[in-house]
Amino acid sequence: MQLDRSVIDGHNQQRIKEHQRKFEFVSADVANLDEVLQKLTAFNIAIPSWALGTGGTRFGRFSGGGEPRNLEEKIEDVGLLHALNRSSGAISLHIPWDIPKDYKATRELAAQYGIQFDAVNSNTFQDQPGQALSYKFGSLHHVDPKVRKQAVEHNIEVIRHGVELGSKALTVWLADGSSFPGQLNFRKAFQRTLESLQEIYQALHADWKMLIEYKAFEPSFYSTTIGDWGQSFTLANKLGPKAYTLVDLGHHLANANIEQIVSLLLMEGKLGGFHFNDSKYADDDLTAGSIKPYQLFLIFNELVEGMDARGMDHATGLGWMIDASHNLKDPLEDLMQSVEAIKIAYAQALIVDRDALNTAQEQNDVTQCQEILQQAFRTDVRPLVAQARMTAGGALDPVQLFREAGIRKTLIGSRGEKTVATGL
Amino acid sequence: MQLDRSVIDGHNQQRIKEHQRKFEFVSADVANLDEVLQKLTAFNIAIPSWALGTGGTRFGRFSGGGEPRNLEEKIEDVGLLHALNRSSGAISLHIPWDIPKDYKATRELAAQYGIQFDAVNSNTFQDQPGQALSYKFGSLHHVDPKVRKQAVEHNIEVIRHGVELGSKALTVWLADGSSFPGQLNFRKAFQRTLESLQEIYQALHADWKMLIEYKAFEPSFYSTTIGDWGQSFTLANKLGPKAYTLVDLGHHLANANIEQIVSLLLMEGKLGGFHFNDSKYADDDLTAGSIKPYQLFLIFNELVEGMDARGMDHATGLGWMIDASHNLKDPLEDLMQSVEAIKIAYAQALIVDRDALNTAQEQNDVTQCQEILQQAFRTDVRPLVAQARMTAGGALDPVQLFREAGIRKTLIGSRGEKTVATGL
Amino acid sequence: MQLDRSVIDGHNQQRIKEHQRKFEFVSADVANLDEVLQKLTAFNIAIPSWALGTGGTRFGRFSGGGEPRNLEEKIEDVGLLHALNRSSGAISLHIPWDIPKDYKATRELAAQYGIQFDAVNSNTFQDQPGQALSYKFGSLHHVDPKVRKQAVEHNIEVIRHGVELGSKALTVWLADGSSFPGQLNFRKAFQRTLESLQEIYQALHADWKMLIEYKAFEPSFYSTTIGDWGQSFTLANKLGPKAYTLVDLGHHLANANIEQIVSLLLMEGKLGGFHFNDSKYADDDLTAGSIKPYQLFLIFNELVEGMDARGMDHATGLGWMIDASHNLKDPLEDLMQSVEAIKIAYAQALIVDRDALNTAQEQNDVTQCQEILQQAFRTDVRPLVAQARMTAGGALDPVQLFREAGIRKTLIGSRGEKTVATGL
Amino acid sequence: MQLDRSVIDGHNQQRIKEHQRKFEFVSADVANLDEVLQKLTAFNIAIPSWALGTGGTRFGRFSGGGEPRNLEEKIEDVGLLHALNRSSGAISLHIPWDIPKDYKATRELAAQYGIQFDAVNSNTFQDQPGQALSYKFGSLHHVDPKVRKQAVEHNIEVIRHGVELGSKALTVWLADGSSFPGQLNFRKAFQRTLESLQEIYQALHADWKMLIEYKAFEPSFYSTTIGDWGQSFTLANKLGPKAYTLVDLGHHLANANIEQIVSLLLMEGKLGGFHFNDSKYADDDLTAGSIKPYQLFLIFNELVEGMDARGMDHATGLGWMIDASHNLKDPLEDLMQSVEAIKIAYAQALIVDRDALNTAQEQNDVTQCQEILQQAFRTDVRPLVAQARMTAGGALDPVQLFREAGIRKTLIGSRGEKTVATGL
Repeated sequence: MQLDRSVIDGHNQQRIKEHQRKFEFVSADVANLDEVLQKLTAFNIAIPSWALGTGGTRFGRFSGGGEPRNLEEKIEDVGLLHALNRSSGAISLHIPWDIPKDYKATRELAAQYGIQFDAVNSNTFQDQPGQALSYKFGSLHHVDPKVRKQAVEHNIEVIRHGVELGSKALTVWLADGSSFPGQLNFRKAFQRTLESLQEIYQALHADWKMLIEYKAFEPSFYSTTIGDWGQSFTLANKLGPKAYTLVDLGHHLANANIEQIVSLLLMEGKLGGFHFNDSKYADDDLTAGSIKPYQLFLIFNELVEGMDARGMDHATGLGWMIDASHNLKDPLEDLMQSVEAIKIAYAQALIVDRDALNTAQEQNDVTQCQEILQQAFRTDVRPLVAQARMTAGGALDPVQLFREAGIRKTLIGSRGEKTVATGL
Repeated sequence: MQLDRSVIDGHNQQRIKEHQRKFEFVSADVANLDEVLQKLTAFNIAIPSWALGTGGTRFGRFSGGGEPRNLEEKIEDVGLLHALNRSSGAISLHIPWDIPKDYKATRELAAQYGIQFDAVNSNTFQDQPGQALSYKFGSLHHVDPKVRKQAVEHNIEVIRHGVELGSKALTVWLADGSSFPGQLNFRKAFQRTLESLQEIYQALHADWKMLIEYKAFEPSFYSTTIGDWGQSFTLANKLGPKAYTLVDLGHHLANANIEQIVSLLLMEGKLGGFHFNDSKYADDDLTAGSIKPYQLFLIFNELVEGMDARGMDHATGLGWMIDASHNLKDPLEDLMQSVEAIKIAYAQALIVDRDALNTAQEQNDVTQCQEILQQAFRTDVRPLVAQARMTAGGALDPVQLFREAGIRKTLIGSRGEKTVATGL
Repeated sequence: MQLDRSVIDGHNQQRIKEHQRKFEFVSADVANLDEVLQKLTAFNIAIPSWALGTGGTRFGRFSGGGEPRNLEEKIEDVGLLHALNRSSGAISLHIPWDIPKDYKATRELAAQYGIQFDAVNSNTFQDQPGQALSYKFGSLHHVDPKVRKQAVEHNIEVIRHGVELGSKALTVWLADGSSFPGQLNFRKAFQRTLESLQEIYQALHADWKMLIEYKAFEPSFYSTTIGDWGQSFTLANKLGPKAYTLVDLGHHLANANIEQIVSLLLMEGKLGGFHFNDSKYADDDLTAGSIKPYQLFLIFNELVEGMDARGMDHATGLGWMIDASHNLKDPLEDLMQSVEAIKIAYAQALIVDRDALNTAQEQNDVTQCQEILQQAFRTDVRPLVAQARMTAGGALDPVQLFREAGIRKTLIGSRGEKTVATGL
Repeated sequence: MQLDRSVIDGHNQQRIKEHQRKFEFVSADVANLDEVLQKLTAFNIAIPSWALGTGGTRFGRFSGGGEPRNLEEKIEDVGLLHALNRSSGAISLHIPWDIPKDYKATRELAAQYGIQFDAVNSNTFQDQPGQALSYKFGSLHHVDPKVRKQAVEHNIEVIRHGVELGSKALTVWLADGSSFPGQLNFRKAFQRTLESLQEIYQALHADWKMLIEYKAFEPSFYSTTIGDWGQSFTLANKLGPKAYTLVDLGHHLANANIEQIVSLLLMEGKLGGFHFNDSKYADDDLTAGSIKPYQLFLIFNELVEGMDARGMDHATGLGWMIDASHNLKDPLEDLMQSVEAIKIAYAQALIVDRDALNTAQEQNDVTQCQEILQQAFRTDVRPLVAQARMTAGGALDPVQLFREAGIRKTLIGSRGEKTVATGL
């Protein structure tokens, strides 16, 4: 289904007066209003194809209905999101779950919805039916060169698909690691990983990036071969200028200061992209901003500061993507809540009084530094986000419109009650 | 397959001389040698039926071969373990994965292998095909009384199966919780859980126990309705004398002092049983003793001290069970390594010089307290464990005999390469 | 110094127009505005006497200037805070740091500032000069009955001081624990603690409460004898109706769900009070709301819900206190930031649409539950808090007035640059 | 006091027979016995001068008696340790706590006890009396260039002292960080730190190393400017070949895989040294091996493997040092327990069957990998450590001899009951 423009207009019409009151109130205090609105409008967060269905845990999965059954329906779902919030104009594919059968048709379908193809993702953490060699004991770090070769070739194939669709980046997340002391020679595993990545790097086009994720644990429960930012950063340095570190918010040990990591990677020119989600305990993959919204703001505070210091364009300088799992909520509602939380954090970061903050920092005026950040965070910036969205053609309240318009019901009608999207 | 006695004898014959040398050496320093050997011999750890196949994570599962395809083959596997280590003489069933078709035949099969039926486990964390109402939002804590009723009846049915097989306990582990702030009214959820448990409690026979697990997180990622020992203990107190707390080593927040919890629950007469496993990050369900063997010893140190203080029989006073997941190793090898680690920790705890420890504690002689515990832990007690095992008819080195005898190969031959056991 | 009323009026005059604009905007959407303002006005948070000076870590302390040199100056400081924010109308004394020399004069001084005496705190975690027996190895749990007796008597003496000043509660925080495995018999330590507390409990007046803190670790690094809410709750149950659990936000293992603990303690009628602070890693004792403001809101959400369910008065039903350490900021500024953050969280909790939340919870509408909580949290309630403060005679912006009025400078002038307040 | 050789001989005489029985038993199974004994004999762990007195927490300090009152007595204490265990032949000084008054006399005194001067440590985490500028807001990362200059000069002065005493390394641990979001510009702080370190690096002699510590938190509670191995490693890379990372076991986030970090730093040629201690919750600075002895073994397993792979000499390739705090135990007893635990872990690592481990790793035989490591860890290697110690002239049981000989009593006699050593 494609959302009729009139549905959005009708929704906005009903809310416009109340919205205007709020927007006028908050914008009165925003010195750089035009800049903020322009940047909010330009900001897009890619939707991963695997986040459009209900996720699960190792204990089970409770599917909802109307999940997309194929790549076309996934693009349709992202199109719906983008129509509603005007900030989800890209999809990130996961191979082999989303191998396009006809590149041209796929590109055209996406274009119809205003959707671009973000980073493509390889998958060497599962065995696929008919796969020659198993990834049970890893892929790019594997002791067996034949397994490494298979994994390298898979990544190169993923790049090929991406090239056809117009992607400009390959995201590599490896489950490679060990679950028991002694299982792995850490050093050799790291070096084999480097060599494998070098082979993949050779296949990267000149205008592509390789985004290297790190993760502290899960599914490996003793060590992960690319386990923290230091390891990813070391690999990115050895690989070359097209290699970058990708930060997933849920991939750290408890209490890690992620905003500091972000700042330092930007300083070194090696931050490549972001996977948004939230978590309380481990890699819980919850809705962005649902548990630690202040941390999300602090991260954006560093992103804005650091990108500006390097003269980077906010919208295109880094890869922005959601990577969450929707076990209990409707996936589309959950994604809209994530996008909203991310844009709120971004808006708050944009209104931080940077000159005042710099001055307070130079004076070690800790009280004042806190006042300045909290002033931005405590401001209700939702009307700014809504204004940017409405101006771009989106809905003032995407989640409520999704419900009012009975979109899930329509999807169930067309796709069925018992569909299960490919993915986790 | 049933392991021929002669195979074990042959294996032991080859190792007996070397074993004797070691046993004599270590036993020379053990004042209470007979008691230690007797207790080690009497000690049995139940094997959960779901641990006999390869486990997985939410990212995938890499099955091995020759996994048991039904309850009979699970009993066969536990029988093999027990023949090898003489400490796995019980199986813990999980309903509905292991519903016996013929109680009498099942009992007889188990008896053939010297296997008893330990606590039976209910499952309300997954939906089964054809199930009327979903557990997506919980079971015993559910807002809908019809779902609670379904879950209560399932538990009562599990008790019925257990009664037929000679079990004496019901283990209740609930995934009930919430993944987002606001989702749940904690208080009401707790009270509904209590009421549901009370209904199940009514169905318990006089000589049965109800073992109530707690878990900090996963699969719920914001709150778990029975989330820590204090919550389980409060429920057990309200339920009555047949209700107890069950401690699973992986179900705590990081750094929790589990040994102190064990000690206090024993003090209050409310420790009911144990699920052994090990972990580095979360509920990793690794082989017992593979990550923190000293913690395992410290827990046994409290168990021995606390059970002795109450005059409890070590072998029967509490329910002992492994609850691990074998993602990378052969499940049977993994279980043998777990049982060995548990018995080593138990043996170390048995040789602690308790009088000296009490004296040092009374004198706040912290150095000496540490010396006494480390003296026990650093002692190589493996010959004691092996001696008890051999005397009971088991193998001196179960893992190596499992390999020498080609047991997995035989199982694959009879069951096939591509079997997948029911379970997680 | 006592802040002249005209100073506050002048400050408010300058800001009143801008304030009014904001207050009108936000109050337009608050259905229960009068109730919210009335409750915010009634809400007071006690200031601990030891938080008025610069705190330190084990690595050192960097004192500021003008710290209070005695109890009178501490009362003066709290008086200043209260004059500015009208929400700090109580002081919590720590014996022996704050032994009054003349009860009547102390009471009168406090009354002059509108200050009441909140819970009194005992100190058995340090040795005082001339103390007969050492608390090196604990106090109420000590193996030596003479040490326990000394500690019991100290607590009873603290009660006596409190009675003279009009306090109604004794807060007991014990550092008792162990730093090495084996050092302590957990069970005996717990039972000795219970017996000691029973002796103190006997000395409690009928209208007094005993507030029992728990803490996971520090300064004991292996076990703490009252280590978690379950242990405190068990003691409170055994002691009787005057004994309650006190929750300090920094005293938990990482990732603990404190709001759930709060809810359950309220359910059981055993929540007695609160120590506010914030932390990222351990018991960091940072400014309330400076790290995890959403968690603070979620806790207040449970407090409001739970107190209302029991018909408790918000202002008097529980003991509210700050317990932070100000290592880098001016202590008074830091305290004002804490009080502001606490009142913001409280205001947000007061405007949660409870009927809608209940309905969404009953329907397992997780998306909507989150929308409802975030609607409250994202609202900029600062004008509500400011309005209540101004109406009660306080300043619209306490921190800025503190700076404009040069209060610290005045204090340094009268007290000196190199004063060091008693405390940690 | 200097321990009379005859005291040790007498002690050993009494135990020699029992020792021999045990040594013969265990050495029968050690293929590389001579190598193990030789390496254990050569292995020395430096004692930090500040660990010779009772440590404290922010809540207080409970001093023992007979603590060293000056540098001479600290050397005397290390001399006593070394006489007892023959593995403490070096002292690590902390400036300004241990500024030698007379280099020659100090060197001669140390030589008398067979003590060498290990890495010298600077201190910019405290303000010293009379210090011109404060380190309240950091030192090498400070916003004020004058503070940075003062800190740089202090470090250079520390090097000068070290040169006079024969040290070959400067250890830099910085408390620099922030306790509140916004306080610090992470990027600028990092770059200022780099520049300051570069200035210090210039002053390093050709045969010196700079060892750069990292620490996740404390005393800074929001960010630490050198917060993890990745940050230290990045600095070391930018500084040059004389700069290395130093790993302190207590300076990580919970659950960090330290052994992997060690392996990768060795791989990169940037591991410089080690600070041993143990911890359960944070930087608890407990006795090495008292909480997680298996982790200590796993770290040594990587150290041995990694140093051998680079052909490094175990005894001199890295800097080995204890960095613990002795709050409850006699400091000298505590240090002896630490050294013993470290040598046990080292001995266990030395007897790992590396060829078999390599083979098992190459075959992904996870069960066997675990068997091999556990075989080494479960072996009671204490007789090997004791043999090496005795051969070198030390005591078979240092802690017991320390007690039998009444050494502490003698020290109290000569130094007094109420001495407090400089340090934390």
